[in-house]
Amino acid sequence: MCRSLWNGIFYKLKIMILDNFLRDLEAVRTVSPLVHNITNYVVMNNTANALLAIGASPVMAHSLPEVTEMAGIASSVVLNIGTLEPDWTEAMVIAGMTAKSKGTPVVLDPVGAGATSYRTRVCRYILQECRPDVIRGNASEIIALLGADAGTKGVDSTASSDIALDSAKTLASQYGAVVVISGATDYVTDGENVATVVNGSPLMARVTGMGCTASAVTGAFTAVNKDTFEAALHAMALMGVAGEIAASRSEGPGSMQANFLDVLYGLDGEAVRNTLSL
Amino acid sequence: MCRSLWNGIFYKLKIMILDNFLRDLEAVRTVSPLVHNITNYVVMNNTANALLAIGASPVMAHSLPEVTEMAGIASSVVLNIGTLEPDWTEAMVIAGMTAKSKGTPVVLDPVGAGATSYRTRVCRYILQECRPDVIRGNASEIIALLGADAGTKGVDSTASSDIALDSAKTLASQYGAVVVISGATDYVTDGENVATVVNGSPLMARVTGMGCTASAVTGAFTAVNKDTFEAALHAMALMGVAGEIAASRSEGPGSMQANFLDVLYGLDGEAVRNTLSL
Amino acid sequence: MCRSLWNGIFYKLKIMILDNFLRDLEAVRTVSPLVHNITNYVVMNNTANALLAIGASPVMAHSLPEVTEMAGIASSVVLNIGTLEPDWTEAMVIAGMTAKSKGTPVVLDPVGAGATSYRTRVCRYILQECRPDVIRGNASEIIALLGADAGTKGVDSTASSDIALDSAKTLASQYGAVVVISGATDYVTDGENVATVVNGSPLMARVTGMGCTASAVTGAFTAVNKDTFEAALHAMALMGVAGEIAASRSEGPGSMQANFLDVLYGLDGEAVRNTLSL
Repeated sequence: MCRSLWNGIFYKLKIMILDNFLRDLEAVRTVSPLVHNITNYVVMNNTANALLAIGASPVMAHSLPEVTEMAGIASSVVLNIGTLEPDWTEAMVIAGMTAKSKGTPVVLDPVGAGATSYRTRVCRYILQECRPDVIRGNASEIIALLGADAGTKGVDSTASSDIALDSAKTLASQYGAVVVISGATDYVTDGENVATVVNGSPLMARVTGMGCTASAVTGAFTAVNKDTFEAALHAMALMGVAGEIAASRSEGPGSMQANFLDVLYGLDGEAVRNTLSL
Repeated sequence: MCRSLWNGIFYKLKIMILDNFLRDLEAVRTVSPLVHNITNYVVMNNTANALLAIGASPVMAHSLPEVTEMAGIASSVVLNIGTLEPDWTEAMVIAGMTAKSKGTPVVLDPVGAGATSYRTRVCRYILQECRPDVIRGNASEIIALLGADAGTKGVDSTASSDIALDSAKTLASQYGAVVVISGATDYVTDGENVATVVNGSPLMARVTGMGCTASAVTGAFTAVNKDTFEAALHAMALMGVAGEIAASRSEGPGSMQANFLDVLYGLDGEAVRNTLSL
Repeated sequence: MCRSLWNGIFYKLKIMILDNFLRDLEAVRTVSPLVHNITNYVVMNNTANALLAIGASPVMAHSLPEVTEMAGIASSVVLNIGTLEPDWTEAMVIAGMTAKSKGTPVVLDPVGAGATSYRTRVCRYILQECRPDVIRGNASEIIALLGADAGTKGVDSTASSDIALDSAKTLASQYGAVVVISGATDYVTDGENVATVVNGSPLMARVTGMGCTASAVTGAFTAVNKDTFEAALHAMALMGVAGEIAASRSEGPGSMQANFLDVLYGLDGEAVRNTLSL
């Protein structure tokens, strides 16, 4: 179910979200956008597979001699700091700046921001230099980006997503970005408007890289929809719907992983209609 | 089945192992300890998922600018040299020393020790500098740490686990550590006492990273049980029991991976009682 | 089905391929060759698991202090540039040269050649220095190695495999290598003779690392069969047959991954006979 908060111009989205979501999913499958990921070692395989499952074309390339060229041909760029190191930071900034200079959308996943000062510092550096179009994190991470103590525990959030909404709005306004807070309820905001997705399953938090996958999928949707707010919302709706369907068929996090990819691959309008409530 | 060797104070373990094992498993699920892994590229995803499946909170962080801070907030630190390189070695030593200075348990997985002199050398350096609480490897690796030629073939052992028992005892005494030899029979020793776990399945050796997962799970158990010998034994019992149940439902190593995580996630006292023999 | 082109001495292969294929598969299972992979972060887990599933012994080791020693004890070396960076390039060249100096077969997977000039440049450097025994890529990559514009899109080919056959023959002759083009039809050529494999499934392209897995499996087969052309052909036949059987049991790319490993693990002569057509 998608529960809407009725502030600002969000009302129109309520009417159009289902059709627009299916249109964007179809566009990803048809266009097969090249999503350039500079991401962490833990989830590279998952995010590549999720992108392939929805019909996108993932590429992972992080080294300085090629990152400008790869970002230059990409349809979107996804930066994920999950297993950060200095050379990768530079590559992320170069890829992000290259993309922005060409009007290519950039997504930032600030994995573990707040857990160490290094992660927080690097995220702010990327925010400043690249001005990502979308920032997607859990509540602790989003709060940490604004400098508050967010009680991050490693890469897992210790706060529920609603607590970060004010931070997300401030962050969105400050950087002109769409900010997504993942959690039991997902929030999408551009600083003024807010949309929510309440689909999903607690089992998703027991599979590593589901958040990272959400960021990668957001990259694919921003590549086919210039309305970044809508693209981010559709990506989170896809994650929530596919996660909920997959969890209902799974005995645990192992079968969940396989089912999730299968559902992403086969998702059709009827399944979405039956699962996503507006 | 867990077959016990009756030397020393091990007898009491026989009586209490099942209750204590279930108590520790419950503690991992309740406390959700933050397990800081500096591990290899091949298995990061597996070990993160296994830790999530048992209720722990994994974090992977290996770079010099953050490793001290991350190890400082971790409940345990797991060092795994599977895809070793110089910068990572330094990070491992710093993380290990940081953890030890705070009384946080450290687990070392000497993947492929003996296969190259570099791996053996780095392991000894880590042993010397960090004094890990638990060392878990296969027979070839454990023998190699003492300088004997162990016939390691890449990262796979060419020796059966019992052959390494003397080496394990010596190693344990020398470094004041609990040493675990994985194999068809797993041995856990503190240099004097020895416990064994004979659960498991040959199919586990056909899935990459099962040994690395055992080390990561050991990290989670040492975080909730100050008795390192018992914690290591419980971790190996968990691996053996879950592996045996998962293998009985699997057609091969592909389904085994998914089933293993599902079993870890859902394991209850009854399943353990029916599988683990004392 | 394996459709043969009747040029040169290839006719004899038609008669013997099935028996020889099963002989090689059995040899891999019996000998368990040590396959040394220097490969990309995305697929390390998949390729290690595929090698374990067929009975080989994979090792991943990429760092300069140990790469010579590891390549020196390996039964074959597989170089894969999927997530290339400068230090890894050097390690690949050293491993490749070490292997060649000992008569150990070397396989090159030029992932994303043509997508960036860096990848193309590094591939040519490796070709020049190491003279790999087998080069396996998709059509775009094979074409790019000869300097033509091949329309590579990230790491996915935009050309069908037959278009690259002339390039593959030229490349094979130029470097004295067996060249494999993966696609709906797989081509294997030594510059003169050409064999094809038409088994497989479109679902294989929706799972990341299937091409990389083909290269790793090729490494295992070259370790047990001195006839490199035959070894490469058998590896592609194995991939095609296992992929086709696995896909027929799968609902999508998630279950496909598990089924593929299960099929590799359990593949017997009867399943091969029923699936592979000559």
